[in-house]
Amino acid sequence: MGRRTVSVDSIVQSTRIVLASRPDGAPTTDNFRLEVVSLPELSEGQVLIRVIYLSLDPYMRGRMSTAESYADPVEIDEVMVGGTVGQVVESRHPEFPAGDYVLAYAGWQSHAVVDGRHLRKLDPAAAPLSTAVGVLGMPGFTAYSGLLKIGQPKAGETVVVAAASGPVGSAVGQIAKVKGARAVGIAGGPEKCAYVLEKLGFDAVVDHRAPDFAEQLRAAVPDGIDVYFENVGGAVAAAVLPLLNLYARVPVCGLIAQYNDTAAPEGPDRLPGFFSRVLVKSLTIRGFIQSEFVPEMFADFQRDVAAWIAEGRFAYREDFVEGIENAPSAFIGLLEGRNFGKLVVRVGEEN
Amino acid sequence: MGRRTVSVDSIVQSTRIVLASRPDGAPTTDNFRLEVVSLPELSEGQVLIRVIYLSLDPYMRGRMSTAESYADPVEIDEVMVGGTVGQVVESRHPEFPAGDYVLAYAGWQSHAVVDGRHLRKLDPAAAPLSTAVGVLGMPGFTAYSGLLKIGQPKAGETVVVAAASGPVGSAVGQIAKVKGARAVGIAGGPEKCAYVLEKLGFDAVVDHRAPDFAEQLRAAVPDGIDVYFENVGGAVAAAVLPLLNLYARVPVCGLIAQYNDTAAPEGPDRLPGFFSRVLVKSLTIRGFIQSEFVPEMFADFQRDVAAWIAEGRFAYREDFVEGIENAPSAFIGLLEGRNFGKLVVRVGEEN
Repeated sequence: MGRRTVSVDSIVQSTRIVLASRPDGAPTTDNFRLEVVSLPELSEGQVLIRVIYLSLDPYMRGRMSTAESYADPVEIDEVMVGGTVGQVVESRHPEFPAGDYVLAYAGWQSHAVVDGRHLRKLDPAAAPLSTAVGVLGMPGFTAYSGLLKIGQPKAGETVVVAAASGPVGSAVGQIAKVKGARAVGIAGGPEKCAYVLEKLGFDAVVDHRAPDFAEQLRAAVPDGIDVYFENVGGAVAAAVLPLLNLYARVPVCGLIAQYNDTAAPEGPDRLPGFFSRVLVKSLTIRGFIQSEFVPEMFADFQRDVAAWIAEGRFAYREDFVEGIENAPSAFIGLLEGRNFGKLVVRVGEEN
Repeated sequence: MGRRTVSVDSIVQSTRIVLASRPDGAPTTDNFRLEVVSLPELSEGQVLIRVIYLSLDPYMRGRMSTAESYADPVEIDEVMVGGTVGQVVESRHPEFPAGDYVLAYAGWQSHAVVDGRHLRKLDPAAAPLSTAVGVLGMPGFTAYSGLLKIGQPKAGETVVVAAASGPVGSAVGQIAKVKGARAVGIAGGPEKCAYVLEKLGFDAVVDHRAPDFAEQLRAAVPDGIDVYFENVGGAVAAAVLPLLNLYARVPVCGLIAQYNDTAAPEGPDRLPGFFSRVLVKSLTIRGFIQSEFVPEMFADFQRDVAAWIAEGRFAYREDFVEGIENAPSAFIGLLEGRNFGKLVVRVGEEN
């Protein structure tokens, strides 16, 4: 084999975060390593982008482990994956000239060489660029597709969602309201709870940190629960289960409360009791990844949510962290619920 | 309050089985009591029927307990509930004259006064009368509706069902075959396994009593499992779960393996791991009671299954027990898997 032309003499360097080691339980900053690498020359069809916004999302915890999942794990010493908003710096793809803003899956790095086929053009005049990884992007679409396709809330029904101040939960509750359902949120701490009730317009909110959380939740859903949008698992799910009504629907998009588990928790074994509830209440439990519904629903999603925002019926909140070097600690905080709103790393300036 | 006219001087007596006490774990014959009671005079709209066949089904275990379920429990000293085939002896309902054969929900007794509105007329020339509580009745329709509406097997997919020699499981596998899917049955013991393979035409069968059951099941589904029709729970479900494919569907109609559980089993707690599978594989879990689908599908069911039987594509087996007094021990045997085919008590002669 001949020697490949490598990128050591390229002038473009990327500052990036790679997976240094796999976490045992909760990730620590030691599981990540910051590197500066030189990027290769562009091949035909590729573009060089500088990253402006990096999205941090709970699913990334799954990519750090080798446990079977719906996507392959990140390899050790490889750059962490993630959705990004960037600007084209140099292009060998006719549809994406330099200067264009694009959505890319470029990962935790400041610059990247990416294939033009995997880009989506963004119009900075249409919506704030960061929303392409938030309310108008993957998290918003997770809420929209899972709630409408699986949850199917009807007017007057009760929809419950946890992490209600986060990008998925906040969208779930607000879409439920648009559809005429009653939205009950679960959030951690008084500040988030107040935001869910006052800014997002949920009908009720319950603080999962309250010692009598399960009783408060029961009181907040006098007619039971028709849709539980599952994005956390753990103690919240345990409190929800006995409250599910006949024919209740449970879209399952995430389980952040248990992503750091290293083994099955101690007993008793709740699985038989869970199946009894499924039978007795004719429940529907449905796991999903939003990409399943992109061909069918993404255009509707973008049109609907943009309209609802314009009509003042739909609020969103972003939590910005400055600098790619702070991505690991911000991500660890995300798993602990320390963010308040959609967590986005500002990697570069918009202009 | 005035004294009611009671039935002590009626000439018609009913021999019946009442619930004497609630079981703690597995039912025993002490939980039942045989009584002879006199029946009341008919009111307008009622008919007196003599019961010919009593269906014994796993769901009756739920009616013996006060735990929340999809139907109310049988009260202590009340007659056990159950589907029956009977003949009208005396009638005050114009649509059901004496001599008619009817399907009724008359319970564990030899005679009953029932409301004509709850009857369905049966044609003894169209199909054997006992099939109205079996292959052409509730168990068959449980299989048909759950498999086609929730399981939705496609040609070439793999469908797994337990209790495969029983009335629900045998229908699930044979309907799967009609739809072009691969049917894999689970049954207990060599005799039932041979029947499933040879008489019912499943593609493979696994004996759940085998010490290496889980490994045998894995070998029997080289392409994984697309539909698991859940009618047993317990160890079978545990072996199935890791084998479910992306987008697999799990209709849940019964959990006979755990009906006698008095508390959650010891740990570890498998519920978080189960939800992880739901998420990673985008699984659909859906509990159901066949009655949900009666308006939509029952006519299709009767037409299809009758045609498949006539074409020789669909076999069924009934396991008859003689005499209402033997219903308790037969029912206890049902929960232990001792029946072989649809369990029916012959309470009276057809003619």
